[in-house]
Order: sequence, then structure tokens, then C-alpha cells
Amino acid sequence: MLLSNSLAISHEIIKRVVKQGDTVVDATMGNGNDTLLLAGLVGEKGKVYSFDIQEAALKNTEKKLREAGVSGIVELICDGHQNIDNYVPNGIRAVMFNLGYLPKGDHSIATKACTTIEALKKSMELLMDGGDITIVIYYGGDSGFEEKESVLEYIKTIDCKKYSVLVCDFVNQINCPPIAVCIEKIRK
Amino acid sequence: MLLSNSLAISHEIIKRVVKQGDTVVDATMGNGNDTLLLAGLVGEKGKVYSFDIQEAALKNTEKKLREAGVSGIVELICDGHQNIDNYVPNGIRAVMFNLGYLPKGDHSIATKACTTIEALKKSMELLMDGGDITIVIYYGGDSGFEEKESVLEYIKTIDCKKYSVLVCDFVNQINCPPIAVCIEKIRK
Repeated sequence: MLLSNSLAISHEIIKRVVKQGDTVVDATMGNGNDTLLLAGLVGEKGKVYSFDIQEAALKNTEKKLREAGVSGIVELICDGHQNIDNYVPNGIRAVMFNLGYLPKGDHSIATKACTTIEALKKSMELLMDGGDITIVIYYGGDSGFEEKESVLEYIKTIDCKKYSVLVCDFVNQINCPPIAVCIEKIRK
Repeated sequence: MLLSNSLAISHEIIKRVVKQGDTVVDATMGNGNDTLLLAGLVGEKGKVYSFDIQEAALKNTEKKLREAGVSGIVELICDGHQNIDNYVPNGIRAVMFNLGYLPKGDHSIATKACTTIEALKKSMELLMDGGDITIVIYYGGDSGFEEKESVLEYIKTIDCKKYSVLVCDFVNQINCPPIAVCIEKIRK
């Protein structure tokens, strides 16, 4: 199916933009699925920085990467993604965000509007021209509504001369389907 | 650039879904660019039905198709797209809509919410499973606002068990950038 869901859209964008040898970021490591995807795309000459504030996320992801034989490409960082500029160099090709709480994890530990937007601003600065940030906004049930609104409001204010911002929304679904966002740095 | 504009998104979707030998529809012929694209995609064994209410559109498009040597694949129909079911058989792979007036044409002759939505409903019925309708909504300046609102409201009400509806919006741009919509018939 061409139009399946927002996560598939974000993966599609990432697969098209990320090349062997690139430096990229998983801003929300979680269970490490996006980190693993990125490691495969950048290959042995590339580099993935992956962030999470929960030790459990790093432990699970480390195991996943080791089993796939790609540990050497990835730096796992136990810190908030709003501190991305302390770890990641300029000129990155892509940054992936999955907003919300860790699937099957503690709903009280989730990304928050304030730190997410700070991380987005810093990521936009670090992007190379033509690079992309993908955001999958999960919300619904007991959480995520305030962050969703804040992020959607913020991205409307991004300078259109420097960045192109696309929002992809499955508008006829029930139960708060995730929203996909892509921020692309315009080539000069 | 990955994220250029809504027209590019609609073309991208069409190129991925339409195959040689398919039957497809250009619901808004205009200058014939989408008709030509579709003819190339379906090839000699395929069929394109293309609608416009303006004779000038048919004349320009006929010339364009003849020069490209693909006239035989295309049926040009001088009628409103809301009458699609009088001409087009069941089981079509894709339908393309570009809403608004003819570029460089008379702004008073434009698609209208009422007939557009009737054409969308009939197109959805005619689609094969897995088939797609793309809509590029042009608005701004002196026209198109009412149609845009009506179409965006209507598509939210489409049965999510039968169709997936995606809206792609460039949210940080000025001057009313066109909106891309895709309606996909879910495979049973």
C-alpha cells in the first residue's frame, strides 16, 4: 500500500535522503529501530548519533546493534536531545524524531514540547543544505496533545527562505493517527 | 530537492502507482501536462480519459499528444468531470485533479466545490483496490478559497475503512501554497 502510515512516510524520506558515509542523528532512540535503519543507510564509513534519557533504551539498542554487527557506526548518548549541539558536528544529513513515550514504556516519561522544539531548532542549524528532519508526532489516549499543538504551531513560524516544512496528515482516520512532518534545509 | 511542491508530490504518487496497461483519468485536462504524463505511464496498452469543459484545453492537449505520438492512447472528453461515470469504466488505477482555473486562463472559469466533490465521489467508486486519486488544490489571489475549504471538509468524512486520505501541506510558506491530497482505495 502506498499510503500506509506516518512512520512509513518518515522512513521513505530518510531512505531517499541518507547516503553511505553520511552523519545522521536519531533524536529519540527508544527501542532503537530508527537507529538501526540509519546505521544500515550510512554504512561503515558513516556515523549515527542516537539520543535517549532512559538507560533501558540504550541497553536495548546496544544489543540490537551488536546483533546486527553495526555497533561501531553508532554513538549512543544518554542525554536529552535538546543537548544535541554538545555531541554532534555541523553538516549532518538527517535527524529523526518520534515524539511521544516509549512504546510499551512508562507514559509519564515522554518527549515534551519545550525540549523537543529546542532540539528541533538546534537540529535545523546542524543540518547540511538539502538535509532533512523527520518528525512523527504520536498523540492520543492520555498524552501528547499539548506537544502536538506546540510543535505544529512552531513549525509554521520557520523561515521559509531557509527551510521547507511539510505536514502529512491522515485526515479521515479515527483515534488520533500519528502526523508526519518533514523539515528540509533549502539548498543555497 | 526532496520537498519541492504539491504538484511534484502528486506526480511522485502517480508515477509509483500507475503501471503499463492501466486505465487512468485526468479529471482536469487544462494544458494537458498531466494527460501527457499519464499517457507515458500507461503506454500503448493503456488508456487515458481526460476531461475539460473548455474547447481550448482539448485543442491544446490534442496538439501536445500528437507531437508526442501518444494520441491513440487518450480519449479527450469535452464535459464536466462530475459526469465521469458516463465515460469511464470501473477498475481504474488513478485519477488526477488539479483544482482551480486554467493557468494563464480566465479566472472566472474554474473548478467548483460542488462538481469537484461529485467527481471525487464517483472517482472513488470507479477506482480499483489500491488505486489512488491525487488532488492538487490551488487557491489564493481572487479565487479558490471556498472550494479548498469544502474539499478539505469533505475528505475528512470519507469512510476510513474503505479509503485512506492523506493531506500534504507546506505549512511555513506565504502566498497560499497549493495543497496535495491523496485518496487511496484500501485493498480488501
